[in-house]
This record gives sequence, C-alpha cells and structure tokens, in this order.
Amino acid sequence: MPKFVISLFPVCIVPLSLTDCFCCRDDEDTFKILIATDIHLGYLEKDAVRGNDTFVTFDEIMKCAKQNEVDFVLLGGDLFHDNKPSRKAMHNCMEALRKYCMGDKPILFEVLSDQAVNFGNSKFPWVNYQDENLNISIPVFSVHGNHDDPTGADGLCALDLLSCAGMLNHFGRSLSVEKLEISPVLLQKGSTQIALYELSSPSTMVKCKVVFLYPLSKHGATNYIPEQFLDDFLDLVVWGHEHECKIAPVRNEQQLFYITQPGSSVVTSLSPGEAVKKHIGLLRVKGRKMNLQKIPLHTVRQFLIQDITLMDYPDIFSPEQPNVTHKVQAFCQQKVEEMLEEAEKERLGNPQTPEKPLIRLRVDYSGGFESFNTMRFSQKFVDRVANPKDLLHFTRQREAKDGMRDEGIDFEALLSRPSSEVLQLRVEDLVKEYFQTAEKNMQLSLLTEQGMGKAVQEFVDKEERDAIEELISYQLEKTQRYLRERHVEASEEKIDEEVSVGLRG
Amino acid sequence: MPKFVISLFPVCIVPLSLTDCFCCRDDEDTFKILIATDIHLGYLEKDAVRGNDTFVTFDEIMKCAKQNEVDFVLLGGDLFHDNKPSRKAMHNCMEALRKYCMGDKPILFEVLSDQAVNFGNSKFPWVNYQDENLNISIPVFSVHGNHDDPTGADGLCALDLLSCAGMLNHFGRSLSVEKLEISPVLLQKGSTQIALYELSSPSTMVKCKVVFLYPLSKHGATNYIPEQFLDDFLDLVVWGHEHECKIAPVRNEQQLFYITQPGSSVVTSLSPGEAVKKHIGLLRVKGRKMNLQKIPLHTVRQFLIQDITLMDYPDIFSPEQPNVTHKVQAFCQQKVEEMLEEAEKERLGNPQTPEKPLIRLRVDYSGGFESFNTMRFSQKFVDRVANPKDLLHFTRQREAKDGMRDEGIDFEALLSRPSSEVLQLRVEDLVKEYFQTAEKNMQLSLLTEQGMGKAVQEFVDKEERDAIEELISYQLEKTQRYLRERHVEASEEKIDEEVSVGLRG
Repeated sequence: MPKFVISLFPVCIVPLSLTDCFCCRDDEDTFKILIATDIHLGYLEKDAVRGNDTFVTFDEIMKCAKQNEVDFVLLGGDLFHDNKPSRKAMHNCMEALRKYCMGDKPILFEVLSDQAVNFGNSKFPWVNYQDENLNISIPVFSVHGNHDDPTGADGLCALDLLSCAGMLNHFGRSLSVEKLEISPVLLQKGSTQIALYELSSPSTMVKCKVVFLYPLSKHGATNYIPEQFLDDFLDLVVWGHEHECKIAPVRNEQQLFYITQPGSSVVTSLSPGEAVKKHIGLLRVKGRKMNLQKIPLHTVRQFLIQDITLMDYPDIFSPEQPNVTHKVQAFCQQKVEEMLEEAEKERLGNPQTPEKPLIRLRVDYSGGFESFNTMRFSQKFVDRVANPKDLLHFTRQREAKDGMRDEGIDFEALLSRPSSEVLQLRVEDLVKEYFQTAEKNMQLSLLTEQGMGKAVQEFVDKEERDAIEELISYQLEKTQRYLRERHVEASEEKIDEEVSVGLRG
Repeated sequence: MPKFVISLFPVCIVPLSLTDCFCCRDDEDTFKILIATDIHLGYLEKDAVRGNDTFVTFDEIMKCAKQNEVDFVLLGGDLFHDNKPSRKAMHNCMEALRKYCMGDKPILFEVLSDQAVNFGNSKFPWVNYQDENLNISIPVFSVHGNHDDPTGADGLCALDLLSCAGMLNHFGRSLSVEKLEISPVLLQKGSTQIALYELSSPSTMVKCKVVFLYPLSKHGATNYIPEQFLDDFLDLVVWGHEHECKIAPVRNEQQLFYITQPGSSVVTSLSPGEAVKKHIGLLRVKGRKMNLQKIPLHTVRQFLIQDITLMDYPDIFSPEQPNVTHKVQAFCQQKVEEMLEEAEKERLGNPQTPEKPLIRLRVDYSGGFESFNTMRFSQKFVDRVANPKDLLHFTRQREAKDGMRDEGIDFEALLSRPSSEVLQLRVEDLVKEYFQTAEKNMQLSLLTEQGMGKAVQEFVDKEERDAIEELISYQLEKTQRYLRERHVEASEEKIDEEVSVGLRG
C-alpha cells in the first residue's frame, strides 16, 4: 500500500507521498475528509458573553461535515478544553455528534487494519459504523490532545466516553507502555488507500521515552525518531495543538512532505496567532494525489489585535506634557473605535458571527510614559466588546518581545533545526530537581519522581485539580494493600522497612 | 384507560387498581418490567476493595433484564451516587447499557402519550427505541433521584447525558416551574395499558410548592396533594430513595393501593435496613392484574450486622473485673468470627458474591464498661472484611435508640398519620432562619433565600461541591450584567442603589 494518512500529536500527519495537488471531482475513489483540531469544547463556558462559542462552532463544523457529505471527520486533539469536561460540554458534544453523524448515508470505505488493535482500549473495539446497533453516517476519528488526554487510575479520557457511547472512534492509544507501537488505521475507498497514524501523544512519549518534535529536556537526543525514518514515509502532517490557522499545506523541503496546521476553532489567548481567520479543511485524497480546501468558519467570534508604541508618535504626545495620559487615553480609545468599526464591517456579511468581537490593543509605553487604569478605560466598551476585562494591555519593549512567544512554534524552523536546540524547560525538570535534592526525605518515599512529575504536570497543564490528590491516595492504598498482604504489624519501623523492600521489588 | 403505572419521587408508583395478584405466563398482553432503584453507581469507587461493587451489580441487573427478555427497565432514581459522576462511573454505566440494551429483540409495546411532552427536556424528545439510528432491544425508563438530580444553570443531570446518547429515557421532569403538571408516559402492549408517572422530585416540589410524603416545614399542610386524590388513582407505588429491600408488595388499607420498595442494590450505610438481602423486581402486568417476582442479586457484597449489650452478660464480665476490657475484646472477636463464618457459609453457593463481607458489630457498653481501640481490633480482620475501618461501633443506650432511625422511614405508618406529624426540620429552615436574622446584611443582598437554600441543600445532600460557588458566580454575573446594561458608573453608592432597585424589579 503506497498511501498513508498519519496523525501525530502534537502533530497529526496525513501522508500521501503526494506528487501533485490536484483539482478533483468527488468520485468512488476519492476520500473526502473533514479536518479540524483544537475545538476546545467548554472553553470559558461560564462566561455570560462567550460561554456558548465553542458549542456553536462545533455545531458549525459537524454541520459542514454533513453538508459536504464527507467520508469521515478527523479530529486532531483537544476536542475538549478541560480534562474533565462539564456536563454541559459533554452534552453539547453528544448532541452535535448524534445530530450530524447518524443517519442513512452509506459508508463507502472499509477499514483494512485490525480494529481490535486500533481500538483496543475500547470496550467496543470496532469502528462505530460497523456496529450493527448504530446507524452511523459520518464516522469521526479522533486522537486526544494534551487537554483531554487519559488520566487517573482507570486511564480513561473524555473521548472514551464518546467512544463507549458509539459516537466517535478514539484511536492512537499505544497499548504498550514499554515500547512505541504505531498501529495505523488503514482505510480503503475504491482504489485509494490511506493510513491514519497517531505517532505519539505527550503521555505516550513520556512512557515510552520516545520523543519527536516535543522534546523533554531529560531525555538525550538519541531518543528521537530519526527524521530520515519519517521522510520516507509521510505525505502530509496534520499539526494539532497550535492554535494559529496555517491550514494551506506547506511543503517541507528537507523532509519532502507537506504540513497543514488547521489551528483552533476558538480564540483561547489574545495573541496575534489567534487573530488569523479560523478555518477547517476539506481534504480530498485520490490515489497518490490530494487537495486541501480551506473552509472559513463563520460562527467564530472575531478577534482583532493591534500594537501601538507611544514613542512612535512624538508629534502627538511626549511624556513631559502635563495632560499626556489624557491624550494617550483618547488615542487608544480612537484605535479601539477603529478596530470595532473594522470588525463591524466584516461582520455585516456574516449573520452567524457573534456581535461582540474580541479586541486587544497592546500599548508599548516605554520611554517615560505612564500607564492608566485599564478597568475604567474598558468600561466604555463594556457593551461592544466580548472581553472588556482584558481589552487593553500595557507592555514595555522587553515584554513586547516576550509576548511574541505567544504566536506559537514555527514548526518549519523547528524541523530544520537540530533537536538539541529545541529543548525547553518543563515542569518535569522542576520535579526532578526537587527529588534530587530531597531524595532522602522519608515523607515522600512512597511517591516516585515519575508519578509525581506526571501528576504535577497534569495539575498545571490540564486544570486537573485532583491529579496530585489522586496520585497520593493511589500510592497510599497500594502501600497499605502491600502491607496487609504481608501481615505487617503496625509498628512504624517495620512499615518503613517493608515499604523500602516493596518499592525496590 | 383503566391502568396506570405511576412513579413518584421519593416514591415511584406503579399503579394497577389491581384486584388480585396473579401467576401469569408471558404472552402478548403481558408487560414484563424489571424494577430497580438506588443503584448508586460510583459509590466508594476509589475504595481498593469495594470500588467496583456498584458497577458489577449494575452489570448483573442489566444482564438479568436481558436474560428475562423484559419489555423495559424502570429505574426509580439515584442511578448515580454523585451528582457529577466520575468518568469511570459514567463509562461503566454506558458500557452496560450498550451491552445489554441494544440488539435485535423487537419491542412489543407502544408509547401512546405525547413523547414531546414526556421527554420534552431532551434534545431528542422521543423514546430511544423509536430512533431510526439506534437499535434498542430493552428501553430503560428512569426518573432521577436526589443524588443525581438536575443542577447548575443548564439544568442538566447525569441521566440527560445518557438520554442524549440515546441510551436511556429520562422522564418525569416537570416542564413548568409554576405548577405541577404530571404527564404520564402511557404504554400499551397488546390489550394492556399502563402509565408511568413521576409525581415529583424534591426539586419540583420545592419549585412548585406542592408537597407529598416529603414535607418541608415551611409550607403549611394545605399544600399537600390530598390523599383521596391519590387513592382513586394509584395501583402500585414503587418507592425509591429508601435502601432497605421491602420489595414484596404491601397493601395499604387506607389508600387501597400496593407499595413496593425494591431498595438499593448497594450498601451505603452500615445500618440494619441495609443488611436485608438485596433484590430487584420482575413485574408482570396483564390487564388489571399484576405479579411481582423477587430476584435476588448475587453480586452484592454481604453485610452482616449484630448488636450486643455488654450488660446482658453479667456471667461473663462486669465493669469491676481488672481485665474486663480484654475479655470484652475477646468476646467481640468471637462474635465477628461467628459472623464471618455465617457469611462464608452463605457465600459458598454464590460464586459471584465478593469474598470479603461487610461486618458491623454494635457494642452497647453502657453500665460502666469502657470502650477500647477499635483500630487495633479491626487490624485482625483487615484481610477478611471489606470494612475494617468501621467494623466495630460503640454505642450507649441513648445512642442505640437514635441509631434505629437509620432503618429508614416506615412509609405505611407515615401514610396513616396526619401530615402535620411528619414534618421534619430541614436544611432550608436553617437557611431561612439565617436570612430572617441577617436580613439587613448588605453583604448577602445579592443572594436570595430561595437560591441560597437550594445551593446549601445541594451542597449537603448531593456532595455537590461547587453548588454554593456556582450560585454566587451566577448572581454576581447577573448583577454585573444588570449594572452594565444600565451604564452604572463604578461608584459604590450608586451600585448599592441600583442593586436594590434591580432586586425589587
């Protein structure tokens, strides 16, 4: 089989060894695949203005899949914002899936791979459209992201609930903790064959000590998947996790594959990358050719961002003027008005777009200027913008540069750099350091560095409030059981002794 | 239509004006209904020994429904223990429903009532077996209980997720907040017609100020549904909420209807009522006749409870003896051994029953005896009982009498007593009292008595940790919006003024 669709996290890869993009008609040999990532259902769901944004847009995405009569939907992770989605988020998700993905439309492709392996973590380890009790018209295949990955003793994630309900096919969970086994989902439509891979999620990587494009500083460069292995093999990478829409496929000259980054369908940070118009992709694959059509999302709340540097306007104001702050304020107000006007114009053609846009004005006030009360300033726009609380942001030159980091990783640059350069300091390192200095601390002798590192990371990254508590309870329980099995009497010394034997064993 | 099945919370009512119980064969006119209540999925799910008990028993119950080829399953509330069930609890629930309730078995009864009314709160307001995309073999109808009732701004409960996934039919949610509208689910099989009512859940009662069998002290006796209304009308009450199995239908002589209380399928408190062998019911209804077959549950962990009063054994020990505590301890140990032996004997015939039983020995040590360290005592049984931590319970005479309350409400006695006698002091009263004395407290002027009372009750009754926080956020948000809409400047005095106007309006 010469064709592959590969999905990898934080990268999803759709591979094709594609020789040429093509304009194709829909026929019996052409896969039509709707591609979206980072939908973040439930993001800010308690916000009075923005609370329903993610649900409305997910509805638009799934409706679009139905209207375009796609063969399947491929989701690249972070369908949910919270690791434990609220009832409302789960309910809205199920509603859209049941509404748009069930029905009589026949499925015109087959699964060639071993489904018991592909969906081995499910209690119903087969593709949902082949379940004789479910009438699925559009199967959804999804990997999990870093927000909605499996946690807890049961190793379940939110997608597993959908999968158990027969509403989604969660693939790409490595069955082995020891080694990285990549079992693609192989699909065939007419004469076209593709493969879906999830090369690895961060948790898989941590477990397997295999790292690719998402390095952890504690592993050496030898743990990487060699790039020459990948470039023989990939055709298109669907990159998840990053929120900026860079959906138009970009050819990577070193590796000779294409990359598409659909980006998120909701603005979760007020950074420039998120201001890029949001799209999803309609990917057509026929034989060894592919075409990716950009589909703009109409329900996404507009987001406009602008930077001004006060020093750039010496004719208008200087720090010495007595009423300079008033002048700056008026100037900023005018800028916001302009952005609102621009948003309003653009919105006119799109009745589905929410009325109040997200607006951010970043004001560099270095050079002796003073900041002013942003709350009072925002008050004026409280009815016209969706984010009055963080409309205005003061920066100084140094900060502004830091701010640029928000724009996300330039994956092309990353790919061409040696791996050692892209190392980042991560939470694990802090935990490791703690364990190195506190190694003799008996109070923590039941907690391993690895376990605690993972729990802390979950706590920080995924808003998983119970992660640390759960780990501790789990370890305590385990130790107690261990002691009970050995009938250890409740003397402290003996317990310490047994515990250290147990941990070594 | 002369026949009814009524479900009411905390009572479920299955009505029949039944003239006689009957031994019936299964035929085209006979409804076969599996009845269970208070399954409490997820109760103690983190306990190393008992963690899976509720899931295993739910599996047994649903398997039993399938093996008996019932027409439908009727659940009387508290399917889940936590208002926000864990992922594991939800996953296990879905797994059992998909495994046992989907398939090709034809459904031989019809829904006669207006489904848009019966299931009006659902996004898919029709019975699941009529959905053309779902192949349902055994529909499950359920009311919610006090543990899993709707909460939060979205008014969803855990059952609504199952309902949205097409796995369950959640009925009995009153659409109107103002008045109590009881819209039964009317079912017909051959010539037999039945009706399922949920007369009211506690939340409906609070909202509607209609109270029946579950009185709130702040409403007068005039708010009760007159009993003479009910007795023209009911045939069988399926009483939920109470955990003691009293499943054999009891005829209520005043009201001329039958009552069955299936009881819970898991022991959630170590009280005598819970030690009664757990059953579910197989109800057959034909024309105006019915028969309720008790089905013992085999997977339920055994629970044995015994009371001893030390004063009753003057020949063995008296408080004056120097080593009396040792003697008492040996005596208690022997009692526990006897209970363990009894449990073991009974368990021999039931390979499905978990190995370690729940054991409680209540020791009345009044009369000058001293208690001893229960932890050390329990240590001896740590491998043989499921509840070493609370194996032994010391009481004195007064306490022991209080302890009798655990056995649950005697509903027959309740029904025959005048309503005014059965009033209980409830959490709402405490809140009311607080608001009466603190009425002028400006700090709480945004919170209404009703809202706060409800939140406190949720916090207490349903382990709903976020209820109070959610209420406060909601009120704050509402107030802020109100102020914004009126362009109130941020002066404290003006805000106070506007708020009091707003609350009056």
